[in-house]
Amino acid sequence: MATAYEDLMERVRDIGRLQTSLALLDWDQETYMPPNGVKARAEQIALLSGIRHTQLIDPQVKRLLDEAQTDEDDHVARTNVRETRRNYERAAKLPTQLVKDLAHTSTLAKDAWAKARAQSDFSIFSPLLSRLLELTRQKAEHIGYSAEPYDALIDEFEPGATSAQIEGVFARLRDETVRFLKRLTDSSTKPDRSILTRHYPEQQQRALSRKFAEALNFDFESGRLDVTVHPFCTTIGGGGDVRITTRYLEDFFQAAMFGTMHETGHALYEQGLPREHMFTPMGEAVSLGIHESQSLMWENQVGRSRAFWEHHFDEAARLFPKALGDVSLDAFYGAINTVEPSFIRVEADELTYNLHVILRFEIERELFNGQLEVDDIPQRWNVKMEDLLGITPPDDAQGCLQDIHWSMGAFGYFATYALGKLYAAQFFAKAKEDIPDLFDRIRANDHKPLLNWLRENIHRHGQRFRAGELVERVTGKPLTIEPFMSYVKNKFAPIYGL
Amino acid sequence: MATAYEDLMERVRDIGRLQTSLALLDWDQETYMPPNGVKARAEQIALLSGIRHTQLIDPQVKRLLDEAQTDEDDHVARTNVRETRRNYERAAKLPTQLVKDLAHTSTLAKDAWAKARAQSDFSIFSPLLSRLLELTRQKAEHIGYSAEPYDALIDEFEPGATSAQIEGVFARLRDETVRFLKRLTDSSTKPDRSILTRHYPEQQQRALSRKFAEALNFDFESGRLDVTVHPFCTTIGGGGDVRITTRYLEDFFQAAMFGTMHETGHALYEQGLPREHMFTPMGEAVSLGIHESQSLMWENQVGRSRAFWEHHFDEAARLFPKALGDVSLDAFYGAINTVEPSFIRVEADELTYNLHVILRFEIERELFNGQLEVDDIPQRWNVKMEDLLGITPPDDAQGCLQDIHWSMGAFGYFATYALGKLYAAQFFAKAKEDIPDLFDRIRANDHKPLLNWLRENIHRHGQRFRAGELVERVTGKPLTIEPFMSYVKNKFAPIYGL
Repeated sequence: MATAYEDLMERVRDIGRLQTSLALLDWDQETYMPPNGVKARAEQIALLSGIRHTQLIDPQVKRLLDEAQTDEDDHVARTNVRETRRNYERAAKLPTQLVKDLAHTSTLAKDAWAKARAQSDFSIFSPLLSRLLELTRQKAEHIGYSAEPYDALIDEFEPGATSAQIEGVFARLRDETVRFLKRLTDSSTKPDRSILTRHYPEQQQRALSRKFAEALNFDFESGRLDVTVHPFCTTIGGGGDVRITTRYLEDFFQAAMFGTMHETGHALYEQGLPREHMFTPMGEAVSLGIHESQSLMWENQVGRSRAFWEHHFDEAARLFPKALGDVSLDAFYGAINTVEPSFIRVEADELTYNLHVILRFEIERELFNGQLEVDDIPQRWNVKMEDLLGITPPDDAQGCLQDIHWSMGAFGYFATYALGKLYAAQFFAKAKEDIPDLFDRIRANDHKPLLNWLRENIHRHGQRFRAGELVERVTGKPLTIEPFMSYVKNKFAPIYGL
Repeated sequence: MATAYEDLMERVRDIGRLQTSLALLDWDQETYMPPNGVKARAEQIALLSGIRHTQLIDPQVKRLLDEAQTDEDDHVARTNVRETRRNYERAAKLPTQLVKDLAHTSTLAKDAWAKARAQSDFSIFSPLLSRLLELTRQKAEHIGYSAEPYDALIDEFEPGATSAQIEGVFARLRDETVRFLKRLTDSSTKPDRSILTRHYPEQQQRALSRKFAEALNFDFESGRLDVTVHPFCTTIGGGGDVRITTRYLEDFFQAAMFGTMHETGHALYEQGLPREHMFTPMGEAVSLGIHESQSLMWENQVGRSRAFWEHHFDEAARLFPKALGDVSLDAFYGAINTVEPSFIRVEADELTYNLHVILRFEIERELFNGQLEVDDIPQRWNVKMEDLLGITPPDDAQGCLQDIHWSMGAFGYFATYALGKLYAAQFFAKAKEDIPDLFDRIRANDHKPLLNWLRENIHRHGQRFRAGELVERVTGKPLTIEPFMSYVKNKFAPIYGL
């Protein structure tokens, strides 16, 4: 007879099966669905989402959670019960009406946001943003928190993290980044990024993107690479079916090359999760921040390294003779590693990116602590941009209206992007210690040593450890900004002649 | 407040949304799913199938069916309630254990059938086939019938049809076909089919397949054309998302060309169903036989007509200069319209195909009426092949083991293929009357007149009329074999010099 734990896990797996069926409906909508399929698709997604939510908050889940006996030594069962309880409680605490109101308001808000951005008119978006904030405040109250409402939101994306902890890390990151940024912008030596906006034919970009994904050991038997307007990685069938997408912009070489490596990094994590625990917490990723550390490490620490391009540059020059025929490896390496304050987060470089995140983190926190009104966001945004990056957006479309996240009700999400950068640097520093010839192997296009290190230290554990615990366990230290600051200084100082 | 009818329809639509989500899971598995996604996919499909079944037999459906008041003049509501009651009753009458036993036995039987066919050893398949027949007999008893158990099975695929009716039609079809076939095979004039097995490069086949689908007015804004091992048509999102597949065999020109037109015919029906009734019976196809009439009409009456190729042959010859450079339109027209007894149903020509179906219909009926034992199938099959087609299969792989249907528990299905041929001929004869210049329009590559005729007479009605009623309503006569026999005689006699 099945135990309560086994019954519970079968329910959890069913929720995972629904979740990944939804992921397929989404993936298909972004890739291959014909335009006129959109009405039925919205209905299918709404229906399956509703069934999933009902299954998640089923009182039987509560009963099984209470009855499930787990052995103290059985870390699999303990992890699965702990995370299932967390997921159940977060879902069950929310009144159904609030969930519906949030979904409905968000649908309207996405539309309003798109209009507002197109017209660069914040007033089109602000009433719905106010409503979403109000509903999200209610959500935070239902979920509960110890210090401040914003904690309840952050915890959704980075379980166990708090605003105060993140603020501590971000405060130092902010100061050190601003100081180092000033040294770079003051330097008279600067790389030339313009070669990346020459003409790079799509067909060759496709070949190279696939080659890079293969080089990084993306398993095409357990995944796909397709094309979408906004690149993403989604898991359709546990580690056996992980799909990434990219986009080919013929006058913007970075998009496909680094975008593909970024999504490949996400996919390597998903493909490396233990398949025997598919659809249970032990077979799932720790947090958005840890996920982002994997994508960023492969994109930046590997993909933007000199060693990587020492192997690949000649081939790229052969594929794109008009764009790269007259370019040296050094010039190319500089071009893909330029630092320059800019308005748009998603186009920001490795160093200034975190400042964009910190700005959003601070504004969100002020909103939820009652220190900032919605109508004051545009002004506050621009003041902070000037403080952090020394530039002021010409309009709100290039300022506080640039991101879709708030219109989706995703507050507390942005911080994970910067946390990912810090985790990536701290993990990578440790990997370099453990694999002394790491860059020689990268130079030889052998990415197995790093992948095996990640598999062993991170992927195979699923959700056994929370993010903070994992970082400390793997690197011997809590999260700090030092590895990241060392990494950017070591990389950018020579390029900028410092 | 919603009425019982409205509540009922919302439940019915939800079942349709689940059904089409399942269709996407299937489509994706056949087209783009990576190999290692198969385990999760089987689990996702099993889960959603179970949820759909539970929703279909929910006691609330019964209650709403009993409460739903429909106006006598409201044919939409009457159709929807009638067909929903039918679907509910067919599902609710089956004990859950029997449904599970059938699914489980069929999974084992599919495996055994594949092995049996590979080794041409019926004894590997026969125990599971016996078990499936036993379970299917129970199913027929639960569903109920007036004359014989086989009726309950036929009714699943061709609602309202009975064995006796079909037998009456098939008896005449059999005699007339065998007689006409003898005249053709005795003729000394014979077309040469071998030109179709020359080399036809895939890329050009792709271009032409797409062109044909477009010519027949397949709406690519509401559908897709992809590649699979076994071609099919599936509806993912009502008429707004209908997907067809084809396959490109470089030494078998028919497969892609006529396969694509066949699936396009299915898709035109689905795309033409009234979208305001999406996911309810009024927005769904009448029966498998009527569906097949649409695919066959576009494949054969149109796609294998001389008029069609008078327009397209020159282009085909340009695309395939090596294969068709020395071939005349007449020779090509003869090649795509050869008649020759053969062992394999799916490769049979327009005339002999029905004999393959009649053989299966007779054997199935004998099995369910207790006149035939499973172990005697191979011998009975071969005797009938000799009777009907004058040939004896060299082994059971090319005989009674060739079709997958029985291993899936699909008894009563085959008849719909031949009914489709008869419906197609009867509809097309009427369309020719109503559109006097039909072949001139086909010759001008203008397929709108025929499509509009089908839209008006068949597609727009959804399930308002049962198949027999529809045929009589559209053509003024009940189903008869005359239009089909006239069609084949008029087509093949000149080709065979009769």
